[in-house]
Formats: sequence, structure tokens, C-alpha cells
Amino acid sequence: MSTAPQSKDQLIIFDTTLRDGEQSPGASMTRDEKVRIAKMLEKMKVDVIEAGFAIASPGDFEAVKAVAEVVKDSTVCSLARAVPADIEKAGEAIKPANSGRIHTFIATSPIHMQYKLMMEPDQVLERAVEMVKLARNLCDDVEFSLEDGSRSEFEFQSRIIEAVINAGASTINIPDTVGYGEPDEYGLMFKRLIENVPNADKAIFSTHCHNDLGLAVANSLSAVMNGVRQVECTINGLGERAGNASLEEIVMAVRTRSDVFPVETHIDPVHIVPTSRLVSSITGFPVQPNKAIVGANAFAHESGIHQDGVLKHRETYEIMKAEDVGWNTNKLVLGKHSGRAAVKARFEDLGISFQTQQELDEAFAKFKELADKKHEIFDEDLQALVSDSTAPEIEEKYGFSNLEAISKSGNKPRASLTINAAGEDFSSEAEGDGLVDAAFKAIEKVVHSDAELQLYLVNAVTQGTDSLGDVTVRLQKEGVIVNGQGSDTDIIVASVKAYLNALNLLAAGVLKSHPQKDCV
Amino acid sequence: MSTAPQSKDQLIIFDTTLRDGEQSPGASMTRDEKVRIAKMLEKMKVDVIEAGFAIASPGDFEAVKAVAEVVKDSTVCSLARAVPADIEKAGEAIKPANSGRIHTFIATSPIHMQYKLMMEPDQVLERAVEMVKLARNLCDDVEFSLEDGSRSEFEFQSRIIEAVINAGASTINIPDTVGYGEPDEYGLMFKRLIENVPNADKAIFSTHCHNDLGLAVANSLSAVMNGVRQVECTINGLGERAGNASLEEIVMAVRTRSDVFPVETHIDPVHIVPTSRLVSSITGFPVQPNKAIVGANAFAHESGIHQDGVLKHRETYEIMKAEDVGWNTNKLVLGKHSGRAAVKARFEDLGISFQTQQELDEAFAKFKELADKKHEIFDEDLQALVSDSTAPEIEEKYGFSNLEAISKSGNKPRASLTINAAGEDFSSEAEGDGLVDAAFKAIEKVVHSDAELQLYLVNAVTQGTDSLGDVTVRLQKEGVIVNGQGSDTDIIVASVKAYLNALNLLAAGVLKSHPQKDCV
Repeated sequence: MSTAPQSKDQLIIFDTTLRDGEQSPGASMTRDEKVRIAKMLEKMKVDVIEAGFAIASPGDFEAVKAVAEVVKDSTVCSLARAVPADIEKAGEAIKPANSGRIHTFIATSPIHMQYKLMMEPDQVLERAVEMVKLARNLCDDVEFSLEDGSRSEFEFQSRIIEAVINAGASTINIPDTVGYGEPDEYGLMFKRLIENVPNADKAIFSTHCHNDLGLAVANSLSAVMNGVRQVECTINGLGERAGNASLEEIVMAVRTRSDVFPVETHIDPVHIVPTSRLVSSITGFPVQPNKAIVGANAFAHESGIHQDGVLKHRETYEIMKAEDVGWNTNKLVLGKHSGRAAVKARFEDLGISFQTQQELDEAFAKFKELADKKHEIFDEDLQALVSDSTAPEIEEKYGFSNLEAISKSGNKPRASLTINAAGEDFSSEAEGDGLVDAAFKAIEKVVHSDAELQLYLVNAVTQGTDSLGDVTVRLQKEGVIVNGQGSDTDIIVASVKAYLNALNLLAAGVLKSHPQKDCV
Repeated sequence: MSTAPQSKDQLIIFDTTLRDGEQSPGASMTRDEKVRIAKMLEKMKVDVIEAGFAIASPGDFEAVKAVAEVVKDSTVCSLARAVPADIEKAGEAIKPANSGRIHTFIATSPIHMQYKLMMEPDQVLERAVEMVKLARNLCDDVEFSLEDGSRSEFEFQSRIIEAVINAGASTINIPDTVGYGEPDEYGLMFKRLIENVPNADKAIFSTHCHNDLGLAVANSLSAVMNGVRQVECTINGLGERAGNASLEEIVMAVRTRSDVFPVETHIDPVHIVPTSRLVSSITGFPVQPNKAIVGANAFAHESGIHQDGVLKHRETYEIMKAEDVGWNTNKLVLGKHSGRAAVKARFEDLGISFQTQQELDEAFAKFKELADKKHEIFDEDLQALVSDSTAPEIEEKYGFSNLEAISKSGNKPRASLTINAAGEDFSSEAEGDGLVDAAFKAIEKVVHSDAELQLYLVNAVTQGTDSLGDVTVRLQKEGVIVNGQGSDTDIIVASVKAYLNALNLLAAGVLKSHPQKDCV
């Protein structure tokens, strides 16, 4: 229906997996995990990486700073409410970046101004202008967001946008905060603003859509058709509630339908699937098989008619190639005879690097141990090894010593185990309804954590039962949610490791999972 | 932006979970499972249930027929290629229905006609007209689909649509078969056809969108804005590759944005979450936490700012109520003192009924057994009990007798088990890398199936480790894929049951998972 435009504008891809993605209940990330994901995003050529919310916690400040130190080719951004302390903290966190950005926001919808901020529109506008000016004193690149922007009034939107552009904001983001937008309406909102705000040409307009009605990607793309040139999105569509627009869907829609969309991105899509897996493994959030682009079935054809069609002529049913987004590219297999250099190189390809010789030695020792049990080691196995081994920069209060688990028909399953706590061994034994239940009860006999088990998740990382099982245990205690990870070829051992990891995270007071919790 | 229209058209909801959803690799369903899902869809007030593809296999024929016999309030439909044998089989399968539909299709895009059908457009048109007439001889309600319709040429679309309406088709579906559509373009295609085909007012136009670029819901809704009045969709967006448009997202978008959409549906959304769980449990396809409407986090708020907003005024962040779509509605808890009548009633509320007294007795005995182990029994537990017990109308070649599994640090995990095959007990023992691996190896020592393990999946059905674990084992042998299910409070026992169930399905030659495989 449309003809290809002569020249394409660049669509800026702003990834907020490390900020809005992390706000999914339970998707907490440690500093090192954020750095690993950020490196993959940089390799994928993401333009802007929102690394966190610097004032939310000391841990999140450190995470943003660490990302700013490591990433060279992407702009690194921190979120900040429109208050001086936030903006100063954000400025400090991104200072090490080659290219940094401060992203400040305030709510502009009647309902949010009245009930949440309890401020008059003129006060909101005045505050926004002041804070953009303050941010510009710290950083040349300032983005301003109208929180709940899609439910704000046109007159007020226009006034505040004109004012913050004059104050120095070069990106204007109008999020669909509650996921209420409908594509035509949301796109036309941008068209009207871009046509009517006198200085609109001095800024890039941006979307940030939530997927509550399944329309985040469509709303973002409708905005692009109407003049928007930055899309905020996340890997796997991670994010609060039903999540954000999926980076992979935005990028591949624009690329596959280049006849329709007037833009192109810098993204190298071959890194999409490996990055999706890394994010899934770190957060413990599975990707459903029928997820577009990155789901296990996204490129699998079942029905005879379709298979026949594919064999006869590939394009009858395929509009994208699986290889283009990184499926089947990581087939390089390591084994027990692979040397340290090959293993190190493969780790580095996966965005995993080691700060000290000792860290590398530990990872290599774990690799050798696994290679003894398992003939072929895939990338997923390496990822799992590392989520287990590098895990946290936290003190390990509880360590795993040994386990005996017995399940016999007619008897209750029973687990005996020894845990090391502060250098001392404690043994205990418990019966349970299953072996995992028995093992967790045995742990609690020693630890008495009082934590509530919220999620128990097993990912069979690779095919076959001889593969590493990756277990996620989500514990909740006094409002703090942590995800413990453990991996082992034995599911019971992996479960015990994950439970102990979660207890260690709780004990260390890891609060990075709640970037906005402490700051209201 | 829009004002509410004075009166609303009805949007027909056509659910194809049992047909296109089943075409997801590995999402096979038995006849009884299809009946259980169909009953839930009927309760939800789905207008049309596409129950299968009658000619694909004897099993699928039986499944369509069984659904047609049981469902009273929804139209029951079978798919049929545009060939006489298909249409006759479809007509026979839906004959018992109160209200039946034959849905026939042929490809109309240049690429499909040339490479797959190897037919000229005029031949395709002639065949379509003949087959619609044949179908009308068997059934008053005939739907015609232009396969790969969104990549077909306007002139040919117009000609074939006019001709099949004249031949008696009352629904015209133009699927976006390969998931290539973009909302504006797809919507305008319908607008142009509805305005230009002379007899367009004599049929309902319909969409059927695939989600390869994440746009299935948006494409469907854009079509609705342009005159379409039937949407084909599936629970959880199940379907080939990246799946179909999600029923729950379509329904809730139309409902939540009734100010924008000119239509309303008959759906009672309170059944959405229970139906989503049933489909997920039967197919073994998990729903990711950040899936809209039905994901575990869809209504969960994490960040402090948002929580604060929600407490201050609910509508600041919530556009839908979780209760409206069936979250937290199934809190009725059963326990060991619950009587047979209460348990039977609860099963029936979940769409599970028992044909014979013996079936009910068995289910009740399993309930009692579980209630001895677990204090509170939730709906999910009942679902899991039944996926385990009613399972197949197939002969059980292999049965589980007993198991002893031992995992001890320093030794290889070991499993000894006894399997009953054709009335005789066989014992074996094996070591493995983990307990599950050891148990599966011990089974294979007896069975020698030669099947390949493709997927091993654990769903912790309810919270806590004392809950039932629901394990899915996907085996592949000579091109046939089956999903075995097993549930038990002990993950190892559940795994063994699931593996044996998969072997039984393979042995019974359950081919219903490939509805289109045998018929090209």
C-alpha cells in the first residue's frame, strides 16, 4: 500500500530493561548482572541504555555508575524525579559515561496531579522547567517525560513541552504509563503536538508504552508513523505489570516492514536471542514459547500444510529468518578438552568478563567439573554456570555442604543436609511432601528465616535431562522480594542452592529490586 | 479523542484455541481435553468455537464431534480445505451441533497460488465457489477464508469475495497468515473491500492475525475500526509460531476502551483467567509473568511511586480490575473434610464433568489422597489432579508401580523403579546426572523407546513446595510429538508419571497434535 521512502530517519532505540524492566516484581538485578546485560545491549548497538534510578538505593546508584564506566558506545542514562536530590544523584552516577543522559519526569495528567502530586498545573510546569535547567547544568543531554502523558490535556501538554524545550530538554517523552492508549489516538496525539508546539523541531519526541491491553508495540509504532523518533522499550517486553513494548518486536517490525515505516534503527538483530536468554536467566522470568521473535516456537512450523509450503518456497510462510535474530548462531560447542583460552573467549563473546585471575580460575574449574558430567557444553550452560558462580557481590552467609535426599514409594520423601553458616557446619533432616519440600524444610530447621516462598521455577536450560537445571526461588520477607538462582545437573541440588542464594540475598539486605520504593 | 457512539455493533468472538492453537508444536490435545476447554469457552460466551480440522485425523474428527455434542450455546465449527472430502468430513463432524459452521479456505496470494497450490487465479476462484456451494448443502453457516489474504491483490480479493458471497458464504475471513500486516495497512484493506465489493453488506468480515511482529491484536483491532465484526483469536495467544491474537487482549481492549471502539462483545470476562490456566495446564505451554491480562504480574505493582499512587487513588495506575478478569475469584478452598458433593460441584464449576460413577469415584479418591498431604486444595490443584487422572481415552501400556530415588553428595544420583507393562512388573535401576535423569534412564532400560526428549518443564501449580508439581515431558519419535503430563507433590514422581504418560501417548499413536499433517 505504501511505497518505500527515499531516505530514512534514524529511530533511536532507548532500552529500559535495567530500569523499568527491573521494576517487574521479582526481577531484581545485582550490579554485576546489570553490567553484563548492558554490555550485550551495547554490542547490539542500542542507542541509549537506561541503567537505573540513581537515587532509589545505594545499590542502584552503584549499578548506574558501573554501567557508565564500562559502556563506551551507547549513551547511559539515569532516571530522576523532578526534585533536586534525584537530579544531582543521577548526574553523579552518569559522570563516568562517554555519553550520559539525565531523564527527569513529573506527572501531567489531571488525575495524577490532583491525587498523587497534589499540585496545581502551574506549579508542575514551574517545577519541570527548574529541574530541566538544573539537569542541563550537570549534563548536556536531558530528557523530560510527562508521566501519564497519554491521559494529559492537550493545552497543558503543549505548554509544558514548549517550556521544557526552552529550558534545554532535547528529548520529550510522552509515556502511556497505564497502558490505556489505542494506536490511532496515541499516534494522533503526537502528530498534533509536533504540529502545534512552536519549538517542537528542537526536540526528539519519544514513546514509552505499557502493554496492559496488548498494544504497547502497536502504540509505539503508530507514534513513529506520526513523527516520533525514539522508542523506549525492553528486552522480552519486561516491565511493570504486563511490561513495556518489546525491543525485539519494535526493531524487527521496522526492519521487516521497511516498505511501510519511514525509519531505520542501528540495532544489529543477531544479538537479540542471546540477549533475550541472558535477561530471562538473570531475572528468572521465562519467555513463553509463543512469544514473537524470541519464543521457542516463534520460528517453528507445525502444520503439514505450512511445512509443505515452507519446503516448496520459503517465503510462503516465513517473513523473517531465524538466523537474523540470533537463533542457531550459538552452536559453537565446548567439551572437556576445550582449553582455558577457548573457554575464556566464549565467555567474553557472551558478555561475561572476569575482573581477577581468581574469578576466571573459579569459572574455569566449574566448567571442567560440568564437562566431566556432560559431553557438549552450549552457551546456555555457560550462562547458567556464571549466574551460579559470579552471582553476587554479597557476602555468603549460608553455604551448601552436602545433601542426601531419598524418595521411596510408600514413605515420605526425606532430605538430610549440612549447611555451612559463618564457618560452622549445621546438619538437619526433614520429611516433606516431595524432595524439594523436604530439602527446604531441612534448611529452614537450621535457618528459621520466616521468609515466604513466592515462586519456585525450574528452567531446563538445554535439552535432555543431563543438562543443567536452573532453578529460581523467589522469597519474600517484610516487603522485600529476592530471586535466588541455583544450577546443577541434579534438580534437588539446584533447588537447595537457589534457596540458599535467596537467603543470602535477604541477609545481605539487597534492596536493588525496588528502585522507586525508598524515594517517595 | 473519540466520543462514545450511540449504539454498538456486536463483535463476534471466534475462538480457535482448539484448532490453530493446537497447531503450536507440542500443544496437542486429546478429545476429552478439547471438550473441557470447549465447555469453559461456552461458559465464557464465546460466539464460535473452532473445534478442530475434521479430516486431519480420526482423532480430530472425534474431537470436533464430541465438542459439537456437548456445547449448546456456542456455534461449533470445523476447518476444511476447499476440497470435497474435507468439507464432507467437516459437515459430518458438526452435525450434532445446535449451531454448526463449516469454515473452508484456499490461498489467494500470488506466492501461495504459484508455489503451493500451483493453480491459476481463475481455477482458485472456481474451486472456492464450488466448495462454498457444497458446504452450504451441508450447513447453513459457511465461512470462507482467503489464506494469506493480507498479501493478496485487491482485484482478486474483490472478485473472489463477491463470488463466494453469492455462492452462500456469510462470513469472509482475510487472515494475516504470515504475521506480516501493519495495522493501518491491514485496516484500510478491509475498508476498501467493504466499500467496493458490491455484495459486501451480505457478509460479516473477519480477521485472523498472527503475532510474528507482535502486532496481531493491533491488526485485529484496526480491522474492527474499519468495519470488521468477527475476530478470530485464541486463549493466551496460542497458535503456530508466535501465535494468534489473544482473546483476552482483544476482549479487554474493546471493553476498557469502549469510548473508542464501536463494538461490544458477549464475553463474560470473569472466566478469562481460569480458562487461561486450563489451556496452559493442558498444553504444557506456560504463560509469561508479563503477559497482558493473564500473566502473573499483569496486575502487580512494584515501584514505590506506583504503589503510593494506587493507594492514593486507584485509577491513577489501574485501568482494569483484576477481579473482572477472574483473578482471585477462585479462592474457594476445599480440604480433607470436604464431601463428595462439594468436590463434584467444584469440578463442574471448572468445566470438568464425569461420564461414569467410576470416573467420579476415582477423582474423589485422588482428591482425598491429596487432601491428606496438603491442607488447602485450590482450583489449580483440582485441574492438575484431573489432567493427571482423566488424561487420555487411550490404553495405558505402561503404568507406574513404585520408585526409590537417592541423591547423596559425592555419589551419582540413583533411581530404582518398577514399571507395570501389560500386567507384568519390570524393575530396573540407573544412575544419572540428576535424579530426574536417573529415573528416565531407568525407565528406558525397560522400555527402549528410542524417543527424543524435547522438553522438560515443571510448573509449580500453586504456591509453596507442598503444592502439586505439574511436569510436562515432550517426546519426539519419527516426526510425532507428544506431551506427557504428570502431577504429584514429589517432583521426581511427577516426572516419572509424565514420562510414562508420554510413552503411552506414543504407543497409542496419538496423532491429533498434527491436524494438518496427513491431509496435504
